[in-house]
Amino acid sequence: VRALTFDGTVVLRDVPPPTLAPGDALVAVRLAGICGTDLEITRGYKGYRGTLGHEFVGEVLHCPSAPQWEGRRVVGEINLSCGTCERCTTGLRNHCATRRVLGILDHPGCFAEQLVLPATNLHAVPDAITDEHAVFTEPLAAAFRIFEQVPLTTAVHVAVIGDGKLGLLVVMALRARGIPVTAIGRHPRKLALVAGPGVRTTTTDTLPPERFDVIVEATGSRDALALALALVRPRGTVVLKSTVHGTVELPTAPLVVDEIHLVGSRCGPFDVALAAMADGTVDPRPLIDARYPLAQGEEALAHARRPGTLKVLLEGPPESCWRREDIYGDDGR
Amino acid sequence: VRALTFDGTVVLRDVPPPTLAPGDALVAVRLAGICGTDLEITRGYKGYRGTLGHEFVGEVLHCPSAPQWEGRRVVGEINLSCGTCERCTTGLRNHCATRRVLGILDHPGCFAEQLVLPATNLHAVPDAITDEHAVFTEPLAAAFRIFEQVPLTTAVHVAVIGDGKLGLLVVMALRARGIPVTAIGRHPRKLALVAGPGVRTTTTDTLPPERFDVIVEATGSRDALALALALVRPRGTVVLKSTVHGTVELPTAPLVVDEIHLVGSRCGPFDVALAAMADGTVDPRPLIDARYPLAQGEEALAHARRPGTLKVLLEGPPESCWRREDIYGDDGR
Repeated sequence: VRALTFDGTVVLRDVPPPTLAPGDALVAVRLAGICGTDLEITRGYKGYRGTLGHEFVGEVLHCPSAPQWEGRRVVGEINLSCGTCERCTTGLRNHCATRRVLGILDHPGCFAEQLVLPATNLHAVPDAITDEHAVFTEPLAAAFRIFEQVPLTTAVHVAVIGDGKLGLLVVMALRARGIPVTAIGRHPRKLALVAGPGVRTTTTDTLPPERFDVIVEATGSRDALALALALVRPRGTVVLKSTVHGTVELPTAPLVVDEIHLVGSRCGPFDVALAAMADGTVDPRPLIDARYPLAQGEEALAHARRPGTLKVLLEGPPESCWRREDIYGDDGR
Repeated sequence: VRALTFDGTVVLRDVPPPTLAPGDALVAVRLAGICGTDLEITRGYKGYRGTLGHEFVGEVLHCPSAPQWEGRRVVGEINLSCGTCERCTTGLRNHCATRRVLGILDHPGCFAEQLVLPATNLHAVPDAITDEHAVFTEPLAAAFRIFEQVPLTTAVHVAVIGDGKLGLLVVMALRARGIPVTAIGRHPRKLALVAGPGVRTTTTDTLPPERFDVIVEATGSRDALALALALVRPRGTVVLKSTVHGTVELPTAPLVVDEIHLVGSRCGPFDVALAAMADGTVDPRPLIDARYPLAQGEEALAHARRPGTLKVLLEGPPESCWRREDIYGDDGR
């Protein structure tokens, strides 16, 4: 099957068809999204080698252990946990020490015609939402993760730094919950995508004078943590969303003196994200900047790397290509 | 009056006698302690210039607004807050934006014959404890601060990194509350000072294989945060106690991926620290490595700077020198 892979350089190539372990589902990829983490991987982050990609919506082709999934439109959680270790049995499945992660760690990703995930990782996509919504489920879930980590009410002063894909989704998630938010970015065009009631937008050139109770740092840049620490009030909270390769120069004394809470934040609740899109409180589709067929995956990644680009999508092959016999690779793809 | 001052270099010199504002108390310093922060200041931290020192026990000489304090043995909180701003009136007095801090920010410190603090900053020292206990009140309160920030029970696996003054006080505070703790340091001599029931000691050469729920980083070194992040479990908490001048190279991706909580921690409850020493659950006196009269303050600081040194104390002048008329500087001191 065709896959966009990384082994030091990004190459579109044929890879052996995936094999199913007990409990696995084979999924045809309908649409996949390029994330900042994918771009970091192509810069060396995590040392990952293999098929890229972890944001997708697809259709289940084959699932021997749970055939009720076959033919369903699905999204999938990206952490493949062992299910039996101490962490997995104490609510820390996403942090299983031997986990694999779709397109990030020891498991082929979704920038391919097909992928494999355990059926337990799948979530059915409601009919009310399009593929273009559903492909945002994974990053939107990551945005909603902050509600599980930080008490947020309408009385809390929140700012989001970063007007990239994830930053704007975090603003959308806050807006969906009725939390007033200040969105701080560099690009008026992007900030305009989230403007509206309850959202104040400002560029880094005209920073507000006040300090915030909670800052969500979602820039993807290694310089933004210092800005976050400058904008948070004493005993306030900085939620750190950016995974950047390498180290950050951090002045730790202000963090100690001001007793700041710094909270790392990663994967979130898929069900919450799907429900927010299904009831219309979040519509992420304005973030789509471009779509490419998988066959033009290298160009798509190059486009996603251009400064100022929001979401770039990869389209799987048309449905006519998902014939069940393809699973077995009979046609040599 | 004699004072140990810093203006780019450390100098013992005569300074004008302090003047009292309304509400202030004049305190004769009986004993003062040299803290890592004092040493950081002499390396440029905070840009502070003036009389050094913020850990002391003394006796109130003069307090026109509250004469009941006169003659009492006291310790004093180090933050001088405005008392009227939004932070001061919402429980954040220690974070008042216009605060001065004893010997750290815009207020002369306690490495002197006399100091001035608002009477509201004072705490009476119980008769049950000696001056040698009481001089540890400020750093021991900082150690007890962690209980206000992190839920700690006997079921929580806690490690303290750092066998310097503050690290050992944190271990003592945990031991006093019955929390089992692993003390990680470099010096078997120092670790031995806190060994005993409920305390496992280990050097950095033989680190335990497990990961901890809570790590308290109290080394005073800029390298220890990376070790703390390596030893904490996913979704665990790192309490950051070290205030170091400059920046730290921090790999932030593991912090995000493992969803670590990093919590800055500074000043703590004086009443809790005094009570723990009064009831005997904490005895910090084994940490005293040396005592010098104030007149040998430069030598005392040089001693405190030597690697491996624990607490160095400065002794105020004998009681016979505290005659009330000295307040007015009649004898030219």
